[in-house]
Amino acid sequence: MIVAADNLTGANPLVSQALRDLNPEPLQEMARRCVAAGARMLDLNPGYLSRRQEDRMAFLVDTVQEVTSLPLILDSPNPRVLAQGLAACRETPILNAVTLEEEKLQEILPLAVTHQTPVVLLLLDKKSHPPPSLEGKVAVALELRERALDAGLTDQQLIFDPVLPNLRWPDAWPQIGADFRTVRYLAAGSLFGVPVSTMVGMSNLRSGLRELYPVQMEVTVLALLAGAGLSLALANVLDLTLREQAQLMNQIVGPS
Amino acid sequence: MIVAADNLTGANPLVSQALRDLNPEPLQEMARRCVAAGARMLDLNPGYLSRRQEDRMAFLVDTVQEVTSLPLILDSPNPRVLAQGLAACRETPILNAVTLEEEKLQEILPLAVTHQTPVVLLLLDKKSHPPPSLEGKVAVALELRERALDAGLTDQQLIFDPVLPNLRWPDAWPQIGADFRTVRYLAAGSLFGVPVSTMVGMSNLRSGLRELYPVQMEVTVLALLAGAGLSLALANVLDLTLREQAQLMNQIVGPS
Repeated sequence: MIVAADNLTGANPLVSQALRDLNPEPLQEMARRCVAAGARMLDLNPGYLSRRQEDRMAFLVDTVQEVTSLPLILDSPNPRVLAQGLAACRETPILNAVTLEEEKLQEILPLAVTHQTPVVLLLLDKKSHPPPSLEGKVAVALELRERALDAGLTDQQLIFDPVLPNLRWPDAWPQIGADFRTVRYLAAGSLFGVPVSTMVGMSNLRSGLRELYPVQMEVTVLALLAGAGLSLALANVLDLTLREQAQLMNQIVGPS
Repeated sequence: MIVAADNLTGANPLVSQALRDLNPEPLQEMARRCVAAGARMLDLNPGYLSRRQEDRMAFLVDTVQEVTSLPLILDSPNPRVLAQGLAACRETPILNAVTLEEEKLQEILPLAVTHQTPVVLLLLDKKSHPPPSLEGKVAVALELRERALDAGLTDQQLIFDPVLPNLRWPDAWPQIGADFRTVRYLAAGSLFGVPVSTMVGMSNLRSGLRELYPVQMEVTVLALLAGAGLSLALANVLDLTLREQAQLMNQIVGPS
Protein backbone atom coordinates (compact mmCIF):
# COMPACT_ATOMS: atom_id res chain seq x y z
CA MET A 1 0.00 0.00 0.00
CA ILE A 2 1.35 3.37 -1.04
CA VAL A 3 0.78 6.19 1.43
CA ALA A 4 0.47 9.63 -0.15
CA ALA A 5 0.53 12.78 1.97
CA ASP A 6 -2.71 14.75 1.80
CA ASN A 7 -1.21 17.61 3.82
CA LEU A 8 -0.74 20.04 0.94
CA THR A 9 -4.41 20.95 0.87
CA GLY A 10 -6.28 24.23 0.67
CA ALA A 11 -8.30 23.01 3.67
CA ASN A 12 -5.21 23.92 5.70
CA PRO A 13 -5.27 27.73 6.23
CA LEU A 14 -1.46 27.91 6.03
CA VAL A 15 -1.56 26.31 2.60
CA SER A 16 -4.46 28.40 1.28
CA GLN A 17 -2.83 31.61 2.54
CA ALA A 18 0.49 30.71 0.88
CA LEU A 19 -1.34 30.01 -2.37
CA ARG A 20 -3.17 33.34 -2.22
CA ASP A 21 0.12 35.13 -1.58
CA LEU A 22 2.08 33.05 -4.10
CA ASN A 23 4.48 32.42 -1.23
CA PRO A 24 6.56 29.25 -1.76
CA GLU A 25 8.15 28.99 1.70
CA PRO A 26 5.30 27.42 3.77
CA LEU A 27 4.49 25.05 0.90
CA GLN A 28 8.07 23.86 0.55
CA GLU A 29 8.39 23.48 4.31
CA MET A 30 5.25 21.31 4.36
CA ALA A 31 6.50 19.25 1.40
CA ARG A 32 9.84 18.68 3.15
CA ARG A 33 8.11 17.52 6.32
CA CYS A 34 5.95 15.06 4.33
CA VAL A 35 9.04 13.67 2.59
CA ALA A 36 10.80 13.28 5.94
CA ALA A 37 7.71 11.50 7.31
CA GLY A 38 8.04 8.83 4.63
CA ALA A 39 5.30 9.85 2.19
CA ARG A 40 5.64 7.95 -1.11
CA MET A 41 3.58 10.50 -3.08
CA LEU A 42 2.23 14.01 -2.54
CA ASP A 43 -1.40 14.91 -3.20
CA LEU A 44 -1.68 18.57 -4.24
CA ASN A 45 -5.11 20.02 -3.55
CA PRO A 46 -5.27 23.82 -3.84
CA GLY A 47 -8.96 23.81 -2.82
CA TYR A 48 -11.60 25.96 -4.50
CA LEU A 49 -10.03 28.42 -6.94
CA SER A 50 -11.78 31.34 -8.59
CA ARG A 51 -11.27 31.76 -12.32
CA ARG A 52 -8.42 34.22 -11.92
CA GLN A 53 -6.67 31.91 -9.40
CA GLU A 54 -6.64 28.87 -11.67
CA ASP A 55 -2.89 29.23 -12.08
CA ARG A 56 -2.38 28.21 -8.45
CA MET A 57 -2.08 24.46 -9.14
CA ALA A 58 0.81 25.12 -11.54
CA PHE A 59 2.41 27.36 -8.89
CA LEU A 60 2.01 24.57 -6.32
CA VAL A 61 3.54 22.00 -8.69
CA ASP A 62 6.50 24.28 -9.52
CA THR A 63 7.04 25.10 -5.86
CA VAL A 64 6.95 21.51 -4.63
CA GLN A 65 9.13 20.18 -7.45
CA GLU A 66 11.91 22.48 -6.27
CA VAL A 67 12.26 20.47 -3.06
CA THR A 68 11.24 16.92 -3.94
CA SER A 69 11.00 14.52 -6.85
CA LEU A 70 8.24 12.42 -5.24
CA PRO A 71 5.40 11.53 -7.64
CA LEU A 72 2.52 14.01 -7.53
CA ILE A 73 -1.26 13.60 -7.48
CA LEU A 74 -3.08 16.63 -8.92
CA ASP A 75 -6.28 16.93 -6.92
CA SER A 76 -8.99 19.23 -8.27
CA PRO A 77 -12.52 18.90 -9.64
CA ASN A 78 -11.70 21.65 -12.17
CA PRO A 79 -10.41 20.36 -15.56
CA ARG A 80 -8.65 23.65 -16.36
CA VAL A 81 -6.79 23.55 -13.04
CA LEU A 82 -5.72 19.96 -13.72
CA ALA A 83 -4.57 20.90 -17.23
CA GLN A 84 -2.42 23.77 -15.97
CA GLY A 85 -0.95 21.61 -13.19
CA LEU A 86 -0.18 18.86 -15.67
CA ALA A 87 1.67 21.27 -17.93
CA ALA A 88 3.97 22.16 -15.04
CA CYS A 89 4.80 18.56 -14.03
CA ARG A 90 8.28 17.20 -14.74
CA GLU A 91 7.12 13.59 -14.22
CA THR A 92 3.77 11.97 -15.05
CA PRO A 93 1.34 12.74 -12.21
CA ILE A 94 -1.95 11.08 -11.27
CA LEU A 95 -5.09 13.09 -12.13
CA ASN A 96 -7.58 13.20 -9.24
CA ALA A 97 -10.44 12.93 -10.24
CA VAL A 98 -13.37 12.24 -12.52
CA THR A 99 -16.89 11.27 -11.43
CA LEU A 100 -19.96 10.48 -13.56
CA GLU A 101 -20.50 14.22 -14.05
CA GLU A 102 -20.53 14.64 -17.82
CA GLU A 103 -18.36 17.75 -17.87
CA LYS A 104 -15.56 16.05 -15.96
CA LEU A 105 -15.71 12.93 -18.12
CA GLN A 106 -15.55 14.97 -21.31
CA GLU A 107 -12.73 17.24 -20.22
CA ILE A 108 -10.54 15.21 -17.86
CA LEU A 109 -10.48 11.82 -19.60
CA PRO A 110 -9.03 13.26 -22.85
CA LEU A 111 -6.40 15.04 -20.75
CA ALA A 112 -5.41 11.69 -19.19
CA VAL A 113 -5.33 10.03 -22.62
CA THR A 114 -3.23 12.76 -24.23
CA HIS A 115 -0.68 12.77 -21.40
CA GLN A 116 -1.01 9.03 -20.64
CA THR A 117 -1.52 9.67 -16.93
CA PRO A 118 -3.29 7.44 -14.42
CA VAL A 119 -6.64 8.88 -13.38
CA VAL A 120 -8.69 8.51 -10.21
CA LEU A 121 -12.33 7.50 -10.72
CA LEU A 122 -14.41 8.66 -7.76
CA LEU A 123 -17.43 6.40 -7.30
CA LEU A 124 -19.89 9.32 -7.29
CA ASP A 125 -22.99 9.64 -9.41
CA LYS A 126 -23.90 12.31 -11.99
CA LYS A 127 -24.71 14.73 -9.16
CA SER A 128 -21.46 13.92 -7.31
CA HIS A 129 -23.32 11.95 -4.63
CA PRO A 130 -21.98 8.66 -3.29
CA PRO A 131 -24.35 5.73 -3.97
CA PRO A 132 -25.20 4.33 -0.51
CA SER A 133 -25.06 0.62 -1.38
CA LEU A 134 -22.42 -1.77 -2.65
CA GLU A 135 -24.60 -2.40 -5.72
CA GLY A 136 -24.76 1.32 -6.44
CA LYS A 137 -21.01 1.74 -6.10
CA VAL A 138 -20.37 -1.25 -8.34
CA ALA A 139 -22.75 0.15 -10.98
CA VAL A 140 -20.90 3.48 -10.96
CA ALA A 141 -17.53 1.69 -11.13
CA LEU A 142 -18.68 -0.28 -14.19
CA GLU A 143 -19.93 2.85 -15.95
CA LEU A 144 -16.83 4.90 -15.14
CA ARG A 145 -14.56 2.12 -16.33
CA GLU A 146 -16.49 1.82 -19.60
CA ARG A 147 -16.20 5.55 -20.21
CA ALA A 148 -12.49 5.53 -19.40
CA LEU A 149 -11.74 2.55 -21.65
CA ASP A 150 -13.84 4.08 -24.44
CA ALA A 151 -11.80 7.26 -24.11
CA GLY A 152 -8.62 5.25 -24.68
CA LEU A 153 -7.30 4.49 -21.19
CA THR A 154 -6.34 0.99 -19.96
CA ASP A 155 -7.28 -0.79 -16.72
CA GLN A 156 -3.70 -0.25 -15.53
CA GLN A 157 -4.27 3.53 -15.66
CA LEU A 158 -7.46 3.48 -13.55
CA ILE A 159 -7.59 4.04 -9.79
CA PHE A 160 -11.00 3.51 -8.19
CA ASP A 161 -11.89 5.56 -5.09
CA PRO A 162 -15.15 4.55 -3.32
CA VAL A 163 -15.05 7.82 -1.29
CA LEU A 164 -15.06 7.42 2.47
CA PRO A 165 -17.86 9.39 4.17
CA ASN A 166 -17.51 11.95 6.90
CA LEU A 167 -18.63 10.43 10.20
CA ARG A 168 -21.27 13.14 10.50
CA TRP A 169 -23.20 11.57 7.61
CA PRO A 170 -26.15 9.66 9.05
CA ASP A 171 -25.31 6.46 7.17
CA ALA A 172 -21.54 6.71 7.60
CA TRP A 173 -20.93 3.21 8.99
CA PRO A 174 -22.91 1.27 6.36
CA GLN A 175 -21.19 3.48 3.74
CA ILE A 176 -17.76 2.51 5.08
CA GLY A 177 -18.87 -1.14 4.98
CA ALA A 178 -19.91 -0.79 1.33
CA ASP A 179 -16.64 1.06 0.55
CA PHE A 180 -14.68 -1.77 2.19
CA ARG A 181 -16.44 -4.44 0.11
CA THR A 182 -15.99 -2.38 -3.05
CA VAL A 183 -12.22 -2.22 -2.44
CA ARG A 184 -12.12 -5.96 -1.79
CA TYR A 185 -13.96 -6.84 -5.02
CA LEU A 186 -11.92 -4.46 -7.14
CA ALA A 187 -8.58 -5.51 -5.62
CA ALA A 188 -9.38 -9.22 -5.93
CA GLY A 189 -10.30 -8.82 -9.60
CA SER A 190 -13.83 -10.09 -8.92
CA LEU A 191 -15.52 -7.24 -10.75
CA PHE A 192 -13.60 -6.82 -14.00
CA GLY A 193 -11.74 -10.13 -14.17
CA VAL A 194 -8.47 -8.28 -13.50
CA PRO A 195 -7.40 -6.69 -10.21
CA VAL A 196 -7.47 -2.90 -10.43
CA SER A 197 -5.94 -0.18 -8.26
CA THR A 198 -7.98 1.35 -5.46
CA MET A 199 -7.53 4.49 -3.42
CA VAL A 200 -9.20 6.23 -0.48
CA GLY A 201 -8.74 9.60 1.16
CA MET A 202 -8.60 8.91 4.90
CA SER A 203 -8.84 12.44 6.27
CA ASN A 204 -12.46 13.06 5.28
CA LEU A 205 -13.63 10.50 7.86
CA ARG A 206 -12.85 12.58 10.94
CA SER A 207 -12.79 16.02 9.28
CA GLY A 208 -14.11 18.49 11.84
CA LEU A 209 -14.52 15.61 14.34
CA ARG A 210 -10.98 14.97 15.53
CA GLU A 211 -11.84 15.61 19.16
CA LEU A 212 -14.79 13.24 19.02
CA TYR A 213 -13.06 10.34 17.27
CA PRO A 214 -9.46 9.41 18.12
CA VAL A 215 -6.93 8.64 15.41
CA GLN A 216 -7.14 4.99 16.51
CA MET A 217 -10.41 4.75 14.60
CA GLU A 218 -8.80 6.01 11.42
CA VAL A 219 -5.98 3.46 11.85
CA THR A 220 -8.47 0.60 12.19
CA VAL A 221 -10.37 1.64 9.04
CA LEU A 222 -7.11 2.00 7.10
CA ALA A 223 -5.88 -1.44 8.25
CA LEU A 224 -9.17 -3.08 7.22
CA LEU A 225 -8.85 -1.51 3.77
CA ALA A 226 -5.16 -2.49 3.56
CA GLY A 227 -6.17 -6.03 4.44
CA ALA A 228 -8.75 -5.94 1.65
CA GLY A 229 -6.05 -5.00 -0.86
CA LEU A 230 -6.10 -1.18 -1.00
CA SER A 231 -3.39 0.18 -3.34
CA LEU A 232 -3.12 3.83 -2.31
CA ALA A 233 -4.12 5.85 0.76
CA LEU A 234 -4.17 9.64 0.98
CA ALA A 235 -3.49 10.39 4.63
CA ASN A 236 -2.09 12.88 7.09
CA VAL A 237 1.47 11.55 7.25
CA LEU A 238 2.34 14.13 9.90
CA ASP A 239 0.19 12.25 12.44
CA LEU A 240 2.75 10.04 14.20
CA THR A 241 0.32 7.25 15.18
CA LEU A 242 -1.18 7.00 11.71
CA ARG A 243 2.25 7.03 10.10
CA GLU A 244 3.76 4.41 12.41
CA GLN A 245 0.80 2.08 12.06
CA ALA A 246 0.74 2.49 8.27
CA GLN A 247 4.42 1.48 8.23
CA LEU A 248 3.54 -1.55 10.33
CA MET A 249 0.76 -2.46 7.88
CA ASN A 250 3.26 -2.32 5.05
CA GLN A 251 5.63 -4.61 6.92
CA ILE A 252 2.81 -7.16 6.72
CA VAL A 253 1.01 -6.56 3.41
CA GLY A 254 4.02 -5.25 1.51
CA PRO A 255 4.76 -1.68 0.43
CA SER A 256 2.81 -1.67 -2.86
CA MET B 1 -15.54 -11.85 12.33
CA ILE B 2 -16.32 -13.73 15.52
CA VAL B 3 -14.31 -12.67 18.56
CA ALA B 4 -13.74 -15.46 21.10
CA ALA B 5 -12.36 -14.70 24.55
CA ASP B 6 -9.01 -16.32 25.20
CA ASN B 7 -9.02 -15.21 28.83
CA LEU B 8 -9.84 -18.60 30.37
CA THR B 9 -6.31 -19.84 29.93
CA GLY B 10 -3.91 -21.68 32.20
CA ALA B 11 -1.35 -19.02 31.29
CA ASN B 12 -3.27 -16.78 33.70
CA PRO B 13 -2.13 -17.73 37.25
CA LEU B 14 -5.64 -17.08 38.64
CA VAL B 15 -7.08 -19.61 36.21
CA SER B 16 -4.39 -22.24 36.75
CA GLN B 17 -4.69 -21.92 40.53
CA ALA B 18 -8.48 -22.30 40.35
CA LEU B 19 -8.07 -25.39 38.18
CA ARG B 20 -5.56 -26.92 40.61
CA ASP B 21 -7.95 -26.24 43.53
CA LEU B 22 -11.07 -27.27 41.57
CA ASN B 23 -12.43 -23.87 42.64
CA PRO B 24 -15.25 -22.71 40.31
CA GLU B 25 -15.60 -19.12 41.59
CA PRO B 26 -12.69 -17.35 39.83
CA LEU B 27 -13.46 -19.25 36.61
CA GLN B 28 -17.12 -18.28 36.62
CA GLU B 29 -16.25 -14.69 37.48
CA MET B 30 -13.89 -14.59 34.48
CA ALA B 31 -16.50 -16.20 32.21
CA ARG B 32 -19.11 -13.63 33.29
CA ARG B 33 -16.71 -10.76 32.57
CA CYS B 34 -15.99 -12.14 29.08
CA VAL B 35 -19.71 -12.46 28.36
CA ALA B 36 -20.30 -8.89 29.58
CA ALA B 37 -17.45 -7.72 27.33
CA GLY B 38 -19.28 -9.07 24.28
CA ALA B 39 -17.34 -12.29 23.58
CA ARG B 40 -19.19 -14.46 21.05
CA MET B 41 -17.37 -17.68 22.09
CA LEU B 42 -15.12 -18.79 24.94
CA ASP B 43 -11.82 -20.57 24.35
CA LEU B 44 -11.07 -22.92 27.25
CA ASN B 45 -7.37 -23.64 27.60
CA PRO B 46 -6.43 -25.35 30.87
CA GLY B 47 -2.72 -25.28 29.96
CA TYR B 48 -0.38 -28.19 30.52
CA LEU B 49 -2.04 -30.94 32.58
CA SER B 50 -0.30 -33.92 34.13
CA ARG B 51 -1.89 -37.32 33.62
CA ARG B 52 -3.81 -37.19 36.92
CA GLN B 53 -5.11 -33.67 36.14
CA GLU B 54 -6.60 -34.56 32.77
CA ASP B 55 -10.10 -34.17 34.21
CA ARG B 56 -9.57 -30.42 34.50
CA MET B 57 -10.97 -29.58 31.03
CA ALA B 58 -14.24 -31.32 31.91
CA PHE B 59 -14.30 -29.40 35.21
CA LEU B 60 -13.73 -26.15 33.32
CA VAL B 61 -16.52 -26.96 30.84
CA ASP B 62 -18.97 -27.85 33.63
CA THR B 63 -18.06 -24.75 35.59
CA VAL B 64 -18.39 -22.34 32.68
CA GLN B 65 -21.63 -23.88 31.41
CA GLU B 66 -23.25 -23.02 34.74
CA VAL B 67 -22.96 -19.30 33.97
CA THR B 68 -23.14 -19.02 30.16
CA SER B 69 -24.46 -20.82 27.11
CA LEU B 70 -21.89 -19.23 24.76
CA PRO B 71 -20.32 -21.72 22.32
CA LEU B 72 -17.06 -23.20 23.61
CA ILE B 73 -13.70 -23.90 22.00
CA LEU B 74 -11.81 -26.73 23.70
CA ASP B 75 -8.15 -25.80 23.50
CA SER B 76 -5.59 -28.49 24.27
CA PRO B 77 -2.90 -30.44 22.42
CA ASN B 78 -3.86 -33.54 24.44
CA PRO B 79 -6.45 -35.82 22.75
CA ARG B 80 -7.58 -37.34 26.07
CA VAL B 81 -8.18 -33.88 27.55
CA LEU B 82 -10.23 -32.91 24.49
CA ALA B 83 -12.25 -36.15 24.71
CA GLN B 84 -13.10 -35.56 28.37
CA GLY B 85 -14.03 -31.93 27.72
CA LEU B 86 -16.18 -32.96 24.78
CA ALA B 87 -18.08 -35.45 26.92
CA ALA B 88 -19.00 -32.63 29.33
CA CYS B 89 -20.26 -30.21 26.63
CA ARG B 90 -24.00 -29.54 26.35
CA GLU B 91 -23.59 -28.00 22.87
CA THR B 92 -21.18 -28.92 20.07
CA PRO B 93 -17.84 -27.23 20.75
CA ILE B 94 -14.92 -26.55 18.43
CA LEU B 95 -11.86 -28.78 18.94
CA ASN B 96 -8.61 -26.82 19.03
CA ALA B 97 -6.38 -28.28 17.55
CA VAL B 98 -4.62 -30.77 15.31
CA THR B 99 -1.28 -30.25 13.58
CA LEU B 100 0.62 -32.58 11.23
CA GLU B 101 1.83 -34.52 14.28
CA GLU B 102 0.71 -38.08 13.57
CA GLU B 103 -0.57 -38.79 17.09
CA LYS B 104 -2.90 -35.79 17.03
CA LEU B 105 -4.21 -36.60 13.57
CA GLN B 106 -4.92 -40.20 14.55
CA GLU B 107 -6.62 -39.39 17.84
CA ILE B 108 -8.32 -36.00 17.42
CA LEU B 109 -9.73 -36.29 13.89
CA PRO B 110 -11.81 -39.41 14.74
CA LEU B 111 -13.11 -37.57 17.83
CA ALA B 112 -14.26 -34.71 15.59
CA VAL B 113 -15.86 -37.13 13.14
CA THR B 114 -17.69 -39.11 15.84
CA HIS B 115 -19.07 -35.98 17.49
CA GLN B 116 -19.39 -33.99 14.24
CA THR B 117 -17.52 -31.01 15.70
CA PRO B 118 -15.59 -28.35 13.82
CA VAL B 119 -11.85 -28.71 14.29
CA VAL B 120 -9.00 -26.22 14.17
CA LEU B 121 -6.09 -27.14 11.91
CA LEU B 122 -2.92 -25.41 13.09
CA LEU B 123 -0.54 -24.85 10.18
CA LEU B 124 2.38 -26.50 11.98
CA ASP B 125 4.59 -29.25 10.63
CA LYS B 126 5.18 -32.78 11.99
CA LYS B 127 7.42 -31.32 14.70
CA SER B 128 4.88 -28.59 15.59
CA HIS B 129 7.02 -25.89 13.98
CA PRO B 130 5.47 -23.14 11.83
CA PRO B 131 6.72 -23.21 8.23
CA PRO B 132 8.33 -19.80 7.65
CA SER B 133 7.05 -19.17 4.13
CA LEU B 134 3.66 -18.81 2.49
CA GLU B 135 4.48 -21.84 0.34
CA GLY B 136 5.26 -23.93 3.43
CA LYS B 137 2.03 -22.89 5.16
CA VAL B 138 0.01 -23.65 2.03
CA ALA B 139 1.63 -27.10 1.76
CA VAL B 140 0.72 -27.88 5.39
CA ALA B 141 -2.84 -26.59 4.84
CA LEU B 142 -3.24 -28.87 1.82
CA GLU B 143 -1.96 -31.90 3.71
CA LEU B 144 -4.06 -31.20 6.83
CA ARG B 145 -7.19 -30.73 4.73
CA GLU B 146 -6.57 -33.99 2.89
CA ARG B 147 -6.17 -35.88 6.17
CA ALA B 148 -9.30 -34.25 7.62
CA LEU B 149 -11.43 -35.00 4.55
CA ASP B 150 -10.07 -38.58 4.43
CA ALA B 151 -11.09 -38.99 8.06
CA GLY B 152 -14.66 -38.01 7.15
CA LEU B 153 -14.88 -34.28 7.90
CA THR B 154 -16.15 -31.66 5.41
CA ASP B 155 -14.64 -28.31 4.42
CA GLN B 156 -17.39 -26.59 6.45
CA GLN B 157 -16.01 -28.24 9.60
CA LEU B 158 -12.43 -27.07 9.11
CA ILE B 159 -10.92 -23.92 10.63
CA PHE B 160 -7.38 -23.08 9.47
CA ASP B 161 -5.06 -21.26 11.90
CA PRO B 162 -1.75 -20.05 10.41
CA VAL B 163 -0.37 -19.43 13.96
CA LEU B 164 0.79 -15.89 14.66
CA PRO B 165 4.36 -15.76 15.99
CA ASN B 166 5.56 -14.16 19.19
CA LEU B 167 7.33 -10.89 18.37
CA ARG B 168 10.47 -12.27 20.03
CA TRP B 169 10.91 -14.72 17.15
CA PRO B 170 13.64 -13.42 14.87
CA ASP B 171 11.49 -13.75 11.74
CA ALA B 172 8.26 -12.54 13.36
CA TRP B 173 7.37 -9.86 10.79
CA PRO B 174 7.84 -11.96 7.65
CA GLN B 175 5.89 -14.72 9.46
CA ILE B 176 2.98 -12.36 10.11
CA GLY B 177 3.11 -11.35 6.44
CA ALA B 178 2.93 -15.02 5.36
CA ASP B 179 0.10 -15.64 7.87
CA PHE B 180 -1.80 -12.66 6.45
CA ARG B 181 -1.49 -13.93 2.89
CA THR B 182 -2.49 -17.44 3.99
CA VAL B 183 -5.70 -16.08 5.56
CA ARG B 184 -6.44 -14.07 2.42
CA TYR B 185 -6.02 -17.07 0.10
CA LEU B 186 -8.05 -19.41 2.31
CA ALA B 187 -10.84 -16.87 2.90
CA ALA B 188 -11.08 -15.97 -0.78
CA GLY B 189 -11.36 -19.63 -1.77
CA SER B 190 -8.22 -19.35 -3.91
CA LEU B 191 -6.63 -22.46 -2.42
CA PHE B 192 -9.36 -25.10 -2.31
CA GLY B 193 -11.88 -23.58 -4.74
CA VAL B 194 -14.20 -22.90 -1.80
CA PRO B 195 -13.73 -20.29 0.91
CA VAL B 196 -12.86 -21.91 4.25
CA SER B 197 -12.89 -20.61 7.82
CA THR B 198 -9.76 -19.13 9.32
CA MET B 199 -8.73 -18.35 12.87
CA VAL B 200 -5.84 -16.74 14.72
CA GLY B 201 -4.91 -16.41 18.37
CA MET B 202 -3.96 -12.77 18.86
CA SER B 203 -2.45 -12.87 22.34
CA ASN B 204 0.66 -14.83 21.42
CA LEU B 205 2.00 -11.85 19.45
CA ARG B 206 2.81 -9.69 22.47
CA SER B 207 3.00 -12.43 25.09
CA GLY B 208 5.64 -11.34 27.62
CA LEU B 209 6.18 -8.14 25.60
CA ARG B 210 3.19 -5.99 26.54
CA GLU B 211 5.35 -3.18 27.86
CA LEU B 212 7.45 -3.11 24.71
CA TYR B 213 4.59 -3.22 22.19
CA PRO B 214 1.37 -1.25 22.78
CA VAL B 215 -2.03 -2.84 22.17
CA GLN B 216 -2.32 -0.52 19.13
CA MET B 217 -0.02 -2.91 17.28
CA GLU B 218 -2.28 -5.88 18.04
CA VAL B 219 -5.31 -3.88 16.81
CA THR B 220 -3.57 -3.10 13.51
CA VAL B 221 -2.65 -6.75 12.91
CA LEU B 222 -6.19 -7.86 13.78
CA ALA B 223 -7.74 -5.27 11.42
CA LEU B 224 -5.47 -6.36 8.55
CA LEU B 225 -6.53 -9.97 9.09
CA ALA B 226 -10.21 -8.94 9.39
CA GLY B 227 -9.83 -7.06 6.12
CA ALA B 228 -8.37 -10.20 4.53
CA GLY B 229 -11.46 -12.19 5.56
CA LEU B 230 -10.56 -13.73 8.94
CA SER B 231 -13.50 -15.71 10.41
CA LEU B 232 -12.55 -16.07 14.07
CA ALA B 233 -10.14 -14.29 16.42
CA LEU B 234 -9.13 -15.50 19.88
CA ALA B 235 -8.36 -12.35 21.82
CA ASN B 236 -8.23 -10.72 25.21
CA VAL B 237 -11.74 -9.26 25.26
CA LEU B 238 -11.05 -7.62 28.62
CA ASP B 239 -8.70 -5.16 26.93
CA LEU B 240 -10.94 -2.16 26.30
CA THR B 241 -9.05 -0.82 23.27
CA LEU B 242 -8.90 -4.19 21.56
CA ARG B 243 -12.57 -4.85 22.26
CA GLU B 244 -13.78 -1.45 21.06
CA GLN B 245 -11.73 -1.60 17.89
CA ALA B 246 -12.86 -5.17 17.15
CA GLN B 247 -16.48 -3.98 17.47
CA LEU B 248 -15.68 -1.17 15.05
CA MET B 249 -14.16 -3.68 12.60
CA ASN B 250 -17.38 -5.71 12.76
CA GLN B 251 -19.45 -2.61 12.02
CA ILE B 252 -17.52 -2.50 8.74
CA VAL B 253 -16.82 -6.11 7.73
CA GLY B 254 -19.91 -7.62 9.35
CA PRO B 255 -20.12 -9.72 12.51
CA SER B 256 -19.39 -13.12 10.98
